[in-house]
Amino acid sequence: MTRRLRVQDLPTPALLLDVEVLERNVQRMADRVAALGARLRPHVKTHKCIEIGRLQLRRGARGITVATIVEAKDFAEHGFDDITWAVPVPVSRLDEVVELARRITFRVVVDSHEALEALAAAARAARISAHTWLKVDCGYHRAGVDPEAVASVELVRRLVDTPGITFDGILTHAGHAYHAKDAAERRRIADEERAVMVAFAERLWALGIPVPDVSVGSTPSITAAESLDGVTEARPGNYVFYDYMQAATGVCTVEDVAVSVLATVISHQPGAEHALVDAGALAMSKDLGPRDPAKRRGLGPLLAGIAGATLEPSVDLAAVSQEHGIVAGSSAAAIEGRFRVGGKVRILPNHSCLTAALFDEYHVVRGEEVVDRWKIWRGR
Amino acid sequence: MTRRLRVQDLPTPALLLDVEVLERNVQRMADRVAALGARLRPHVKTHKCIEIGRLQLRRGARGITVATIVEAKDFAEHGFDDITWAVPVPVSRLDEVVELARRITFRVVVDSHEALEALAAAARAARISAHTWLKVDCGYHRAGVDPEAVASVELVRRLVDTPGITFDGILTHAGHAYHAKDAAERRRIADEERAVMVAFAERLWALGIPVPDVSVGSTPSITAAESLDGVTEARPGNYVFYDYMQAATGVCTVEDVAVSVLATVISHQPGAEHALVDAGALAMSKDLGPRDPAKRRGLGPLLAGIAGATLEPSVDLAAVSQEHGIVAGSSAAAIEGRFRVGGKVRILPNHSCLTAALFDEYHVVRGEEVVDRWKIWRGR
Repeated sequence: MTRRLRVQDLPTPALLLDVEVLERNVQRMADRVAALGARLRPHVKTHKCIEIGRLQLRRGARGITVATIVEAKDFAEHGFDDITWAVPVPVSRLDEVVELARRITFRVVVDSHEALEALAAAARAARISAHTWLKVDCGYHRAGVDPEAVASVELVRRLVDTPGITFDGILTHAGHAYHAKDAAERRRIADEERAVMVAFAERLWALGIPVPDVSVGSTPSITAAESLDGVTEARPGNYVFYDYMQAATGVCTVEDVAVSVLATVISHQPGAEHALVDAGALAMSKDLGPRDPAKRRGLGPLLAGIAGATLEPSVDLAAVSQEHGIVAGSSAAAIEGRFRVGGKVRILPNHSCLTAALFDEYHVVRGEEVVDRWKIWRGR
Repeated sequence: MTRRLRVQDLPTPALLLDVEVLERNVQRMADRVAALGARLRPHVKTHKCIEIGRLQLRRGARGITVATIVEAKDFAEHGFDDITWAVPVPVSRLDEVVELARRITFRVVVDSHEALEALAAAARAARISAHTWLKVDCGYHRAGVDPEAVASVELVRRLVDTPGITFDGILTHAGHAYHAKDAAERRRIADEERAVMVAFAERLWALGIPVPDVSVGSTPSITAAESLDGVTEARPGNYVFYDYMQAATGVCTVEDVAVSVLATVISHQPGAEHALVDAGALAMSKDLGPRDPAKRRGLGPLLAGIAGATLEPSVDLAAVSQEHGIVAGSSAAAIEGRFRVGGKVRILPNHSCLTAALFDEYHVVRGEEVVDRWKIWRGR
């Protein structure tokens, strides 16, 4: 950039990314997973950003995880050559899966005979062998096979035996760790996630079925885990940014949250108990954040000032419509005289993954200075 | 397209647009507003689509309304030359406003002295006169001046007198019509919206202040309005698509909803009371739909079959995470045996504006045939 651009001068709404916090978060998780003896395959659905994915690889990540085939293709275009699509593979996208699998190490996930057979047929037609994980349910009960069911062993045998399939191992996601009420519950969920997977892998080995890898992960469970013994790979994603939800539930502190939305006050009528800003549902998402109503801060709490990471104690983005956000406080006095039209505010997102997916780019900041712009690959 | 593509064959998630329903909706609103004696300036934030904007103009719309400066620039690039940005103008975007106002008739909205002075200064510096509406509060209490306050007349005088400003008239949005419980309440809100604006315009005329235009609008209020006497322009937007929210509150029928999300069943475990589909928060949004809990259908009800417009009576998209959707019914029996992995479902969005903003394109369909693809200009 030719001259110094300051946060205060940005057009709004803008998504700010504090690069120092980002680098600290990336390093800390890399160190944590290495210390626990596993490899790190971070989920890039949180950031959808090539620069951040490269930073994660430089700091020790081995491969990445994606949530859509479009993310996979976008990252593959930029040189990422080992990617897991950690959603049970939709059979409507198999043409794209085998096309990508010709070019890079592309790994998909199944938890049904139907998907396995369709995938194997597409792979054989393309004369490839598709790297495939078995998705296991470790207690979240969203997807994945029951690790204690006889039918699950049968499905693994099919994965191992079916031409066109390369069995990569077993994979799970303890999504319920997001809803744990405290660190003790997260530790319990993380331990159960590990124990369920390791027991299943041992059972398979005992039956003479090799299990190349055991993959687990979510930011809250990996942050809480005291051991990853028997696990080979961890797939947290949110930790690069965190968000108000993670801070409110104690997974991180507010100082650890790397992204915020910069908005301009666009209306404030005399005597009104709210101010209007130009950040609505298409800047923040409509994610309500913490499940505990006592911890809710509307669509996100306001931050004090243009830099720094202190929450305004009693001022939230209380409601949104498509492009309007209503800033309101616990009392009219919290608003009175503080939000002049033309002034700027920062809002902490409830759920950074959904907020980032609404923007085209990050404004990368150091303190109050804007040092770069990074594209968000949000194609669908 | 070289060969006939069928809805059943589309990769998912995909946003389907029934072009026959769209055309009927566009024509009906055009006829309605014409019959009420006003001009139609539709809000394109709902669709963000050049083809649909052109259809609206062909059917009699005069100019368009946008929600962001990026929408304004995208439509201007495609020949739309009379655009109102119906959000109180953020002073952080004034450079772009005056740049666009050099090329087309670009109208902005203010409700404060601060924004007026900043806009006028930017316009004078660019040697243009900025078309400007005064935003009036007709009872929604989100933005806009109090039409009965002395200060509001003073602000109009400033709009008329300030060099660099061309006063276009007064504008309002009865957003509370979306939350009305029935048609009678919508009629009352529509009548109040009209009455408030006409009374304010008459007061200004009586003071010798010409009011070139009186602009109102929202899909529910314009659909309910029995008169637009004294109003010159209406700005509904959602009516092109409608959605489950509008159907549930009686603004339209399910048959009037023009968009739905096609998804693939990606997981369904034996005995599970849910199936998993590949449409999550980034396909549907997290909009909860109707305020009345009795009318809620999760993140959207399922439609029966791949064509047609009949709701499944008891199966909804019950929950979403980023790219996963959980389909569940009022009982396990509603799910049992009906959602095989690889099968496809259609989901009615709660809020079509937010859903469309998450996709890159519409798959335009007639019955079960895909006849075209239209880009969604969702840049931020």
